Amino acid sequence: MTPEFDLIARYFTRPPSRAVLGIGDDCALIKVADGCVLAISTDTLVSGTHFFADADAGMLGHKALAVNLSDLAAMGATPRYVTLALTLPAVDHAWLSAFSRGFFQLADQHQVELIGGDTTRGPLSMTLTAFGEVEGGRALRRDGAKAGDDVWVSGSLGGAALALMHLQSRLTLKPGVLDRAAARLHQPQPRIALGEALLGLASAVIDVSDGLLADLGHIAERSGLAATVEWPLLPLAPVLLSVGPAERMACSLSGGDDYELCFTAPPTARAAIDAVSARLELPLTRIGTMGAAGAGVTLLDEHGREIHFDRPGFDHFGA
Amino acid sequence: MTPEFDLIARYFTRPPSRAVLGIGDDCALIKVADGCVLAISTDTLVSGTHFFADADAGMLGHKALAVNLSDLAAMGATPRYVTLALTLPAVDHAWLSAFSRGFFQLADQHQVELIGGDTTRGPLSMTLTAFGEVEGGRALRRDGAKAGDDVWVSGSLGGAALALMHLQSRLTLKPGVLDRAAARLHQPQPRIALGEALLGLASAVIDVSDGLLADLGHIAERSGLAATVEWPLLPLAPVLLSVGPAERMACSLSGGDDYELCFTAPPTARAAIDAVSARLELPLTRIGTMGAAGAGVTLLDEHGREIHFDRPGFDHFGA
Repeated sequence: MTPEFDLIARYFTRPPSRAVLGIGDDCALIKVADGCVLAISTDTLVSGTHFFADADAGMLGHKALAVNLSDLAAMGATPRYVTLALTLPAVDHAWLSAFSRGFFQLADQHQVELIGGDTTRGPLSMTLTAFGEVEGGRALRRDGAKAGDDVWVSGSLGGAALALMHLQSRLTLKPGVLDRAAARLHQPQPRIALGEALLGLASAVIDVSDGLLADLGHIAERSGLAATVEWPLLPLAPVLLSVGPAERMACSLSGGDDYELCFTAPPTARAAIDAVSARLELPLTRIGTMGAAGAGVTLLDEHGREIHFDRPGFDHFGA
Repeated sequence: MTPEFDLIARYFTRPPSRAVLGIGDDCALIKVADGCVLAISTDTLVSGTHFFADADAGMLGHKALAVNLSDLAAMGATPRYVTLALTLPAVDHAWLSAFSRGFFQLADQHQVELIGGDTTRGPLSMTLTAFGEVEGGRALRRDGAKAGDDVWVSGSLGGAALALMHLQSRLTLKPGVLDRAAARLHQPQPRIALGEALLGLASAVIDVSDGLLADLGHIAERSGLAATVEWPLLPLAPVLLSVGPAERMACSLSGGDDYELCFTAPPTARAAIDAVSARLELPLTRIGTMGAAGAGVTLLDEHGREIHFDRPGFDHFGA
């Protein structure tokens, strides 16, 4: 057994449960139930881009999986499997042990099985590919919004972005505020149960990973409709009360990393969505409307006047 | 449309053909036929570890896909889909254009559909996850070898490793020899048709990515058997005739990157395997035998005496 295989065996190999064949062969093998389709999401986290080089390994293990599960949630899929490609500068057993603990804590919570992967030497980064099952034809796509649909968002917005501003020394948060904001940044909770509950209710869904306006913009563009968002309706993260209006707006509208779900649904679904909110004990807030044919998102103030806002969202290759 | 999305649209988006939903949503959606299982392989290539920073982008696009398809071939799976997570230090359109051309040339050859991905900024690396279909229960695993089975290998061995030694300045090849060796290193041909043909014939299969002895060692270990390889039977790459016996042995026994298939089969399958070889116009050579219970690979000389050889294979985290 070579050291590379030993890393997988030591930190990541568990007996397969649902998979036909798990880690240890050229490929993993999975079966999908009749009538189900697999939803597949892949995301890379790179040191220095998505996290600080000295980031807590356990939190990274959680987050790397969470961002992929969030994509499955945004399709209404039930998470089943994941592959992990880990690039490490060197073997650091304390780091690996903490990373795998954080990873499996979240994996176990959602009964996700690690079925394969690759370990290579290089600058620290990780690419995960997650697989979820969803009944054929029911998956929650981005392109299904209709004119007149309500726009909704789950939970609260801007907490993760506020923590990031502190870590980037763009502002300074008090310890109590920082802890709560940092939990949103480092330990996002993928909204799996919400995604499943929205099957048959929502017309389009996306997860808020790049910022609300940018992500709702994707729904608008792919649905061929314009969208409006009413600023006073936005469920701001409570920690945003500790900062000024400019930071509040930037964090909640263009801050990434919240991993809430933004979705559209016809007004006839309001009572059902409120019932989902009560059952999941998760705030679901109506924040706007899908308009006529077009694209783009318009932000309105309390008087219905347009607010001009110039930072649409996070982009790795933006200016 | 943000620049990040624009990169995917510009270089990698094609209309979906077989997939239910391709690039552009939170997840891709694929269906699998009844009775089929999906084989899933994931591999990362990192600049400085798996390729030189100035490597030809078109060749990289080919190779990144080839190494994943080779894993599918080693299961007997028919390639269907792939996801691509690309980490780039900056947007370089000439590089991306060449990379996508090399990638799609090979993808088209095997009718593989790109169904999703992620682009991020960071040190150059790429992680691909490939999906192939294989009839349930027939997949060619590593653990199926039986005592008395023949050990076979396809094509020839050591050409890719020889080119790597030149590029690492460990020896100097003449231009004509270098070109032929470099083609093996940069443009490996995944043995898809061979993998499919071995369904029902081979008892265990692996692709030679880390070196023959190391990879056959995985079959031995997972099958719970010892293996022997007869050095005089090995199909050496013709370019190895230009170097000395030490390099010849190192390249063919522990050189990675050839992406040939090593497989085991009962002696009763010899005629059928020879027929596959003739049909595919691909040499298939018997090089050894699976022995009694145990593990590990023993190398024998022309007199049946053990040859001691100390470089089992490539390992990213080896000493």
